[in-house]
Amino acid sequence: MVRARKWMYVSRPDGEPKPANFSIEEEELPPLELGDFLVETEYFSLDAGLRGYMEIGILPVGSPVVGMTIAKVIESQCADFPVGVYVCARLGWKTHAILNPSKHKDQRPYVVPGLEGRSRALGLGALGLSGNTAYFGFLEICKPRPGETVVVSAAAGAVGSLVGQIAKLHDCHVVGIAGSEEKVRWLKDIGFDEVINYKTGSVREQLRLAAPRGIDCYFDNVGGEITEIVREQMNLYGRISVCGTVSSYNGTPSLVSDPQRDFVSKQVRQEGFVVFRWQHRWMEGIKQLLEWIDQGKLVHRETVYEGFDNAPIAFVSMLRGDNIGKAVLKV
Amino acid sequence: MVRARKWMYVSRPDGEPKPANFSIEEEELPPLELGDFLVETEYFSLDAGLRGYMEIGILPVGSPVVGMTIAKVIESQCADFPVGVYVCARLGWKTHAILNPSKHKDQRPYVVPGLEGRSRALGLGALGLSGNTAYFGFLEICKPRPGETVVVSAAAGAVGSLVGQIAKLHDCHVVGIAGSEEKVRWLKDIGFDEVINYKTGSVREQLRLAAPRGIDCYFDNVGGEITEIVREQMNLYGRISVCGTVSSYNGTPSLVSDPQRDFVSKQVRQEGFVVFRWQHRWMEGIKQLLEWIDQGKLVHRETVYEGFDNAPIAFVSMLRGDNIGKAVLKV
Repeated sequence: MVRARKWMYVSRPDGEPKPANFSIEEEELPPLELGDFLVETEYFSLDAGLRGYMEIGILPVGSPVVGMTIAKVIESQCADFPVGVYVCARLGWKTHAILNPSKHKDQRPYVVPGLEGRSRALGLGALGLSGNTAYFGFLEICKPRPGETVVVSAAAGAVGSLVGQIAKLHDCHVVGIAGSEEKVRWLKDIGFDEVINYKTGSVREQLRLAAPRGIDCYFDNVGGEITEIVREQMNLYGRISVCGTVSSYNGTPSLVSDPQRDFVSKQVRQEGFVVFRWQHRWMEGIKQLLEWIDQGKLVHRETVYEGFDNAPIAFVSMLRGDNIGKAVLKV
Repeated sequence: MVRARKWMYVSRPDGEPKPANFSIEEEELPPLELGDFLVETEYFSLDAGLRGYMEIGILPVGSPVVGMTIAKVIESQCADFPVGVYVCARLGWKTHAILNPSKHKDQRPYVVPGLEGRSRALGLGALGLSGNTAYFGFLEICKPRPGETVVVSAAAGAVGSLVGQIAKLHDCHVVGIAGSEEKVRWLKDIGFDEVINYKTGSVREQLRLAAPRGIDCYFDNVGGEITEIVREQMNLYGRISVCGTVSSYNGTPSLVSDPQRDFVSKQVRQEGFVVFRWQHRWMEGIKQLLEWIDQGKLVHRETVYEGFDNAPIAFVSMLRGDNIGKAVLKV
């Protein structure tokens, strides 16, 4: 019989979490069945995103803490995972667990390639969830092009430090935002073109100097005020990948409402537009609309104000919503 | 010689615009040259977006007011635009203008099809800029699928009323948000499934009833509080098309900061993500990252906390940003 110890999430933090928000439970694991294997955790991942899960209820109070782990197979009834092998699996903060690949449809345990001669912790970082978060979350959502300017917040973190380097591999101008001189130095060492210390001086001014051609891609880990400042300096058709909103995780939702936060868990996409971007397809739109109108499928209505001299008054009336349908002025 | 009258934007409004923010100027138009034609305005468009342009400096104080117009050709040296023809052009609030198609690279004047027997004002509405704003801005950005729930704010406006009908043509469940009972009735008449009056009762509650399966697409004309409420009820992979932010146009930027506003003029795209959406490509990411590490192109760093019992303390330390690179706990 193996007794597993696991950390539970037992009370909601008011601001920064405290040890009392967690407690250890023990459980006795049953004997292995065919196809099962028993693992012992070597490392588990500490992720800022967990704080977000605690806040918005994705992780309800009373649940075991979730997270990725690297664990060693210590007993096995499963040919694919023999004793001695290390796997990456989503066990949470737990010392032991019984796994069975056929019972995990998503997020199956797997052996991390390339760990020989390296710390197995790498399987949680650059060769794990953080690595894939940087790889897919940056490349698939920002779709960076050579020469573009990429800004990364929380740049010295597990994900941010990889995003900046991946952006350099794609020939971008890369600006990191971090919170200490040590982090700034390290990020410059690993190839970031410019790094801003948000704790010293104006972020707005530093960013203008570091990104003189404006910002094309923003990989955002923080949300809040830094994100507002970055957004002011975005270029036309800029792309923002929202990975996390750590700046608001320690606030209560009623006090700190970050409009970025909902984007992450729902994976929502938002895009602003000015219709002239479809100038080259203008008559295609008009012709389709005309067809729908001719077929009686599209109703239109106009509110007609009269008199050239009344234009400002008509404009204010329209802004107040006095019109229904299209507001026009007849000269 | 023709004297044209035109409205100028002469002072920045404090809140709702007043007639004194505009003034009429006259100008004498020169004789026509070869290729020119002279038009007299019949209708011009009144657009809420103009208020936004005034606020954020796209339209500087001292400029002629901009906007689309329907105008009649009254003199012509241009074979393509003979006398008597009506054109749609971006003349602003002006009585007369000289046009020359070869001098307009973008937004050339054009003859609106299908206006015979209809009000020419339609060329500014459903068969003009408003129509194309609804057509492209909704279909290209929201990419609605049959059965999805679509919410439209400022639904009784020129654009919103078309978006809702276009969504019905794509077999969506359509919910409008409007500000009077008359608008609510009209929108139901033209086919909206549900319409909410945001001035009566809780928008949050009304929306929950009107969109019981959550919201897949949101076509946003208003920003502000309504948008925050809609966003709470978005479904996984929801799409938001930001057409305008009229709720904040009459506020000064320092008082009313709407994070949606920057999205429109810059046409910025923002998307949140959870990395497990790329579960099916997981090992592709890990293998590429491993290759970069093996080639010395990607630097990784771990901060290792120790001891199972220290997990909460380590977690708080990581949230404070004490770590550099990936934070892990060694059991």
